[in-house]
Amino acid sequence: MSSRQASLQRGGTAVHLAPGKWQRLGSLTDEEGRFFMLALDQRDSLRRALGAALGISPDAVAADHLTGFKQAVTKTLAPYATAILLDPEYGYPHVIEHLPPGVGLLLCLEESGHEKAGPGGRERKTRLLNNFSVEKAQQLGADAIKLLVYYNPDASAEVRRHQQEIVRQAGGACARAGLPFLLELVSYAIEEAGTDTAEYARRKPDLVARSAAEFSKPEYQVDIFKLEFPADLKWTQEYANGAFDGKVREPVYSLAEVRERCRRLDQVTDGPWVILSAGVTIEEFLVQVDLATEAGASGFLCGRAIWKDAAPLFRDQVAMEEWLDTKGVYNSLRANAHAQLALPWMEHRL
Amino acid sequence: MSSRQASLQRGGTAVHLAPGKWQRLGSLTDEEGRFFMLALDQRDSLRRALGAALGISPDAVAADHLTGFKQAVTKTLAPYATAILLDPEYGYPHVIEHLPPGVGLLLCLEESGHEKAGPGGRERKTRLLNNFSVEKAQQLGADAIKLLVYYNPDASAEVRRHQQEIVRQAGGACARAGLPFLLELVSYAIEEAGTDTAEYARRKPDLVARSAAEFSKPEYQVDIFKLEFPADLKWTQEYANGAFDGKVREPVYSLAEVRERCRRLDQVTDGPWVILSAGVTIEEFLVQVDLATEAGASGFLCGRAIWKDAAPLFRDQVAMEEWLDTKGVYNSLRANAHAQLALPWMEHRL
Repeated sequence: MSSRQASLQRGGTAVHLAPGKWQRLGSLTDEEGRFFMLALDQRDSLRRALGAALGISPDAVAADHLTGFKQAVTKTLAPYATAILLDPEYGYPHVIEHLPPGVGLLLCLEESGHEKAGPGGRERKTRLLNNFSVEKAQQLGADAIKLLVYYNPDASAEVRRHQQEIVRQAGGACARAGLPFLLELVSYAIEEAGTDTAEYARRKPDLVARSAAEFSKPEYQVDIFKLEFPADLKWTQEYANGAFDGKVREPVYSLAEVRERCRRLDQVTDGPWVILSAGVTIEEFLVQVDLATEAGASGFLCGRAIWKDAAPLFRDQVAMEEWLDTKGVYNSLRANAHAQLALPWMEHRL
Repeated sequence: MSSRQASLQRGGTAVHLAPGKWQRLGSLTDEEGRFFMLALDQRDSLRRALGAALGISPDAVAADHLTGFKQAVTKTLAPYATAILLDPEYGYPHVIEHLPPGVGLLLCLEESGHEKAGPGGRERKTRLLNNFSVEKAQQLGADAIKLLVYYNPDASAEVRRHQQEIVRQAGGACARAGLPFLLELVSYAIEEAGTDTAEYARRKPDLVARSAAEFSKPEYQVDIFKLEFPADLKWTQEYANGAFDGKVREPVYSLAEVRERCRRLDQVTDGPWVILSAGVTIEEFLVQVDLATEAGASGFLCGRAIWKDAAPLFRDQVAMEEWLDTKGVYNSLRANAHAQLALPWMEHRL
């Protein structure tokens, strides 16, 4: 049941969205229209984490390991989320029965990882899962569709066109099904030596904003964006002394400049957006949530920042569940609390 | 967000239901899996009520009147419901934007009323809406499909077969879409002079139970039943002195016998069920909710008992909204409170 206030807010705005999508989006939020969503569709990154915990190579990690971990996280943390993002392979079939009533469901369309592409193989193409589709996701009860696209607006034209076409097609399929389309954009380094460099930290705000602007075009039919934080807090003057990972860096911007980048991202994004964690620590993520929601984000869709420290305990089921029950819940509660001032999605201009 | 208890309950039961339907059913309930649902798909009965309020014939009631009433009820009372049942014609397009996030949506498949059929035209056939379907409902964001079927197990074979076939087809379409199928069964008098007679009151428990048993067969693929109260409280010893409508009747059974009828109905119904109000007074409905949930009902799907007294005030918008804001809310709160001991649907044997 919802607060009457939420009803009035919704009634009082003029949002242009197909009513079926509107109804489904409401299944992903709290009563005010804010997203506190748990990402659990990790595959390759989870294989690496569980492989490390088990002392085996990622390739040797069994499907049962992935599903066992996803079950433990779902049972403990899904009750604190307004929605959960699952992959249809290792997640959905094994955890759906542990989802409490009222927790919304997103299913992802893409394969984990990316195909190397472009000159020198430094660019990235997204691959869709075989034998899966928007229609199948709907039949499985999905409230929304998620697609992750690696995107660098300075990549070669061929790679950009490939990524754009995948998004366009997914947008069309979602529109036909009446399902909200959540697009996740992740940038990557092409020229730079890596993402943890001063050069990349400097470029990141621009990469994130230009990507969001591209896919804000109506032809992609994106309903909600899952975006990276448009800067690297570890390279800000205020946090460059190792606040989040103990490493000292030469700052490239100030927190005030980062705030401005967040506002710019909100301005160029034509639709509601949530922030992703990309595996940063929970402490860094909570600052990102503060700044993103201050700028107009409608919440978060976060996985690893909340539950990643459970993975190293995977060999000891009891210790892992104890961690999830205590620190995992603590992380969820803090993330939810930090997103309390998020903008209800229907108040975002669409 | 849901309580962790609900999660454990769900994990601890062995319910056989397609996972997509499971996920969608969860959108209709509270965190414990109980249904407090508002019915607002009335068309013919609402035409009659608004016609009376306006001093015009039901045929002269305009579409705008129906939609205006439905908007007022939705804005005020939907926030107190776990889900709302709408018709796709006068309801959905006009009220969907007033639905708060998290309130589930059911759409109905059938036309209002019935076609006279059978010997002497005393039997009833259901007709489906033109230009509407399970697929369209899904595209509009429906969490579940509702079909009302008038049914008398002693009707002629041809009429019974017609009704059964409609249910079978709707069940198949819902299974293909992954949408939960809610079947509403309403009995009617064939031999008896009317439904408010000692004869019909005596027969009703049997009619309701036999109808529920028929459509519990797996071939119909019903996921949840919306059932009449399996007796007429106005004809019980305890309430026959006019408790609900001031009219004195010669009782035909005791409350203890009615309790037994409720238990029997629960036993023959193969799936979770909710109770409907059929326009009785709120006082009578609250007693029905007590007895039905005591016997194993998972909540209610109730319209007129909650909001019908707003209709006579329709000429005076301010007075009507004032009534909805006070008495309407009061009725919703009481109905929800009386259903607090309802059986979470996933605990019902399926």
